[in-house]
Amino acid sequence: MRKLFVIGIGAGDPDQVTVRAVKAMRQVDVFFVIGKKGDGTQELVDVRAAILAEHATQPHTVVEIADPPRDRTVPGSGADAAYQGAVTDWHEARAELLERAFAETDGVGGILVWGDPSLYDSTLRIVERVLRRARIHFDYEVIPGITSVQALAAAHRMVLHEIGEPLHITTGRKLRDDGLAAGQSTLVMLDADCSFTHIPGDDIHIWWGAYLGMPDETIIEGPLRAVEHAITARRTELRQSKGWIMDIYLLRRGR
Amino acid sequence: MRKLFVIGIGAGDPDQVTVRAVKAMRQVDVFFVIGKKGDGTQELVDVRAAILAEHATQPHTVVEIADPPRDRTVPGSGADAAYQGAVTDWHEARAELLERAFAETDGVGGILVWGDPSLYDSTLRIVERVLRRARIHFDYEVIPGITSVQALAAAHRMVLHEIGEPLHITTGRKLRDDGLAAGQSTLVMLDADCSFTHIPGDDIHIWWGAYLGMPDETIIEGPLRAVEHAITARRTELRQSKGWIMDIYLLRRGR
Ligand SMILES: C[S@@+](CC[C@H](N)C(=O)[O-])C[C@H]1O[C@@H](n2cnc3c(N)ncnc32)[C@H](O)[C@@H]1O
Ligand SMILES: C[S@@+](CC[C@H](N)C(=O)[O-])C[C@H]1O[C@@H](n2cnc3c(N)ncnc32)[C@H](O)[C@@H]1O
Repeated sequence: MRKLFVIGIGAGDPDQVTVRAVKAMRQVDVFFVIGKKGDGTQELVDVRAAILAEHATQPHTVVEIADPPRDRTVPGSGADAAYQGAVTDWHEARAELLERAFAETDGVGGILVWGDPSLYDSTLRIVERVLRRARIHFDYEVIPGITSVQALAAAHRMVLHEIGEPLHITTGRKLRDDGLAAGQSTLVMLDADCSFTHIPGDDIHIWWGAYLGMPDETIIEGPLRAVEHAITARRTELRQSKGWIMDIYLLRRGR
Repeated sequence: MRKLFVIGIGAGDPDQVTVRAVKAMRQVDVFFVIGKKGDGTQELVDVRAAILAEHATQPHTVVEIADPPRDRTVPGSGADAAYQGAVTDWHEARAELLERAFAETDGVGGILVWGDPSLYDSTLRIVERVLRRARIHFDYEVIPGITSVQALAAAHRMVLHEIGEPLHITTGRKLRDDGLAAGQSTLVMLDADCSFTHIPGDDIHIWWGAYLGMPDETIIEGPLRAVEHAITARRTELRQSKGWIMDIYLLRRGR
């Protein structure tokens, strides 16, 4: 039975890989790089390359699987049917490409995933699709990685929730749709629009971080209404000077 | 300035430590082991010992800090004031003990934390207390570790949420108090009572796991009403034969 490793590599710091990830990488013959992004995120590509250069010491090849076009004309929120349909078509197109690439080789496959594969990442959904298509057969194993959620907490040296209380992890889009509940801490990812500026209330605290684990790591923390302008200004400045940004934040209402 | 590392070590598999954690461990002169538990959890102590034996190759000492008694007579839910007061007193007692132990040495300190320090762990709250007491001064750094949440996801090879939807992380106690919301996936930790059996509904799916990353790792998955008896029976059996159990699960309502 052929084998595929889906390996979480941490969210920016190449030293965030685990010993288990390193052991898995050393067994891989062919790494599939799905969806190489444009120039703006060359730094993200560099993190993967640094990890491979340091740890994948055995002979191996790297196969790039270009992203199929995604229908971004479909409007709507992440939960509605049209949006999910567009995402589903795009997953199917990616699955076909992965299937073809894996079929062309006969060694152990590996896919490196940013952060951890269980959080806002489509790799596992695509791998499951390849299996369901049943044209190629393989076993696969998931190796967890440090998430950007934990990178944020470590940078602020904080526990993500109050004692005994819940942690809610969501997207910028959902935060705007659902608002900010009390009695829980809310972690927001995938937010291109500084959605925290849309949330009313004078009792909210924010812990924000960008480029976590990377040389430009930047964090800001404070009462939301006092620091939101500093965050949006700093975010714009960083994004302009670097050409891209990746950020994440925690919000919590006071008691 | 003296230095303390708070190091996440993953949730059971010694190979889940990160390269960064290994590098930090190698700088530590004194490891503080806070709250050594009874015999039942000898296996957890063994995971820590295996990690130290493999990676902390420099000369170092290990100082055990016995748990102060905790007032468990205070009833109530995690969110109420009496309960939080009891926890707070207990944190203060732990902080005093850590302060005393750290004051007696003059090297770099290290504390190994199960999973990641940002999730249902009191180490960071205790360290902050030691700093606020201001009798000793030091800088500290947090090194993230793989959480049991990710270990569960990896064992089931799944994404923890539906596309674009939220993930809610909570405790067994809170699940019973708050019920199970639709439109999100709910991850439950710290549940000694199989609280999933208290949640009504025929449209719920469960992904359960115990001793994740350890030799006795056990997972069960299926429609909640179809598998809940299998889970409670297996859980009782495992807990009786091993003397302790640690489990975690994800619940999700169908569409
Ligand atoms: C597509 S999701 C992937 C998440 C990833 N699987 C994980 O475990 O962190 C991308 C989002 O993760 C967050 N993110 C990932 N890496 C980050 C970093 N180094 N600094 C800040 N945010 C990051 C941002 O919110 C970004 O929009
Ligand atoms: C005090 S919390 C500590 C959580 C830890 N900081 C983390 O990041 O996973 C302990 C709870 O974590 C979960 N847990 C930790 N390790 C586990 C494992 N190996 N298997 C199953 N559940 C685990 C259980 O729900 C347990 O009640």
